[in-house]
Amino acid sequence: MAERHIAIIGAGAWGIALACAEGLAGRRVTLWMRSPVAGTVRSLPRLPQISLPDNVSVTGTFPLDADLTLLTVPLQTLRSVAARLPGTSPLVACCKGVENVTGALPLDILAETQPHRSHAMLSGPNFAIEIAGGLPAAATLAAARLDDARRYAALLSTPTLRLYASDDPLGVQIAGAAKNVVAIAAGIAIGAGLGENARAALITRSIVEIGRLTEALGGKAATIAGLSGLGDLILTCTGAGSRNYSLGIALGQGETLDTILRSRTTVAEGVATAPALLALARRHGVDMPVTNVVARFLDGGIDLARARELLLERPPTVE
Amino acid sequence: MAERHIAIIGAGAWGIALACAEGLAGRRVTLWMRSPVAGTVRSLPRLPQISLPDNVSVTGTFPLDADLTLLTVPLQTLRSVAARLPGTSPLVACCKGVENVTGALPLDILAETQPHRSHAMLSGPNFAIEIAGGLPAAATLAAARLDDARRYAALLSTPTLRLYASDDPLGVQIAGAAKNVVAIAAGIAIGAGLGENARAALITRSIVEIGRLTEALGGKAATIAGLSGLGDLILTCTGAGSRNYSLGIALGQGETLDTILRSRTTVAEGVATAPALLALARRHGVDMPVTNVVARFLDGGIDLARARELLLERPPTVE
Repeated sequence: MAERHIAIIGAGAWGIALACAEGLAGRRVTLWMRSPVAGTVRSLPRLPQISLPDNVSVTGTFPLDADLTLLTVPLQTLRSVAARLPGTSPLVACCKGVENVTGALPLDILAETQPHRSHAMLSGPNFAIEIAGGLPAAATLAAARLDDARRYAALLSTPTLRLYASDDPLGVQIAGAAKNVVAIAAGIAIGAGLGENARAALITRSIVEIGRLTEALGGKAATIAGLSGLGDLILTCTGAGSRNYSLGIALGQGETLDTILRSRTTVAEGVATAPALLALARRHGVDMPVTNVVARFLDGGIDLARARELLLERPPTVE
Repeated sequence: MAERHIAIIGAGAWGIALACAEGLAGRRVTLWMRSPVAGTVRSLPRLPQISLPDNVSVTGTFPLDADLTLLTVPLQTLRSVAARLPGTSPLVACCKGVENVTGALPLDILAETQPHRSHAMLSGPNFAIEIAGGLPAAATLAAARLDDARRYAALLSTPTLRLYASDDPLGVQIAGAAKNVVAIAAGIAIGAGLGENARAALITRSIVEIGRLTEALGGKAATIAGLSGLGDLILTCTGAGSRNYSLGIALGQGETLDTILRSRTTVAEGVATAPALLALARRHGVDMPVTNVVARFLDGGIDLARARELLLERPPTVE
């Protein structure tokens, strides 16, 4: 088998992690970043402690001839980057969220900007730093055609990063977007001192609303119970390494959103996704109480005391 | 409405916590313990930092006249305690697991020892210390007849501890038993340095096998997605306050089961439940790979290296 060439667009923590995993598995990797440092680079700003494998090359020029191109830029910049991508390789979105203003999901953006290429979505419980460090992980690779999903999953799987094929890219995208919003809610609960029991109840409740939206849009409830749904939600809502969760904790402790965002250089996708996800849910007549609280709290519509109260609320019906 | 009288049998952390919640909600509570201290007791050994509300009385004599009796003794001692209980009040099992040797679930034990009384099961994501401290929480109250479940849930609910009625006591019992076993597996993964990604994938995988057993026994898959299933699993597999999870961490770090058990005074229910749950699954022809690894590792059938390997294993099929 010829050496595989994987292009990775975006050298944030996730792009670096995937470059490490693919590089260590013996694939040739081209890692694109907006402003590359001159010369041979072996470590990058977003994960400075990680040394890139030798077969990863860093470039500021979009690669042309990859077998598969992974897009690891933040969701809110996906459109502008995808629109400029040359080549014909299948595209795998590795970012999560709902585009502000348009309400587009990652594969909607790829369909609009690169209509003639094949599209897939990669998502799972994956902290970048662990994958860059070679620890074991699993994720879902979803495409509209199961055959495509299987092929891309086989192409990208490594001994430590196992990918499972799914034909429900919609469910995977909804779950990936929603979990960042729920992570903010879970963080608020912990930051506000409500405790781990309350957080567990909140996460459980959020699974219901994510499933509801997924089914309303034509996705599968089973996806929400899988790696890209439940698995990612658990990781994001409990792991100290989650940016959205830690942002929620700071909010719950009374810090303002402005202060928190000014002190960070990384993106907490849930902040942009919350209102966009809520708008999407409303267009489909789906009630999402947890997402609603987060969106309203982030835009200043309700204060922390009220957000706390609403996050604990649950209709006293049969479970 | 006359003052409600709640009897709580067992003054471990969970019994104390429920006594606090019910007492603070204005109910008269009788808390039974095997060896009560003489005189008026305001704090008990298992949660010494907690001061009992005034309307909680501690006794070594089984109460006779309660509106509802909660059984908070460990599952493996439930049979001997339940067999001696006087009175006619409905019984609510608040312990989780599968009885060793017999393979009985909590309500099986109550049906055998107290066949003429009404039975229910209380289970949810509930760390005792948080509930004793008045933090908010939610749980499931399940009985074969939904009317009973609703009545008991209303009787026990407090402003901070909200109970939701369910008519699937079987699913609630299976989930409650299995989560302690999965918590040991999750702990092993973390203790052995596999990371949070691997833990999240493992928890996700375990939900599948718990659902499979539940359905094989006639319970509902939806229960596994609820507070007593997923909610409790998340709490138990990620919270540092979980005894089964912390036991798993020590095992994953290479300590022996004997050493760990000798250093503890509390019960990690999963140790006794793992082989009993596995036997139950086998009798019903259900494959439970995660439970299998935990049971075999605990009884010395496989070593840590092999357990690590097996916990990461997953058939490379469509998700």
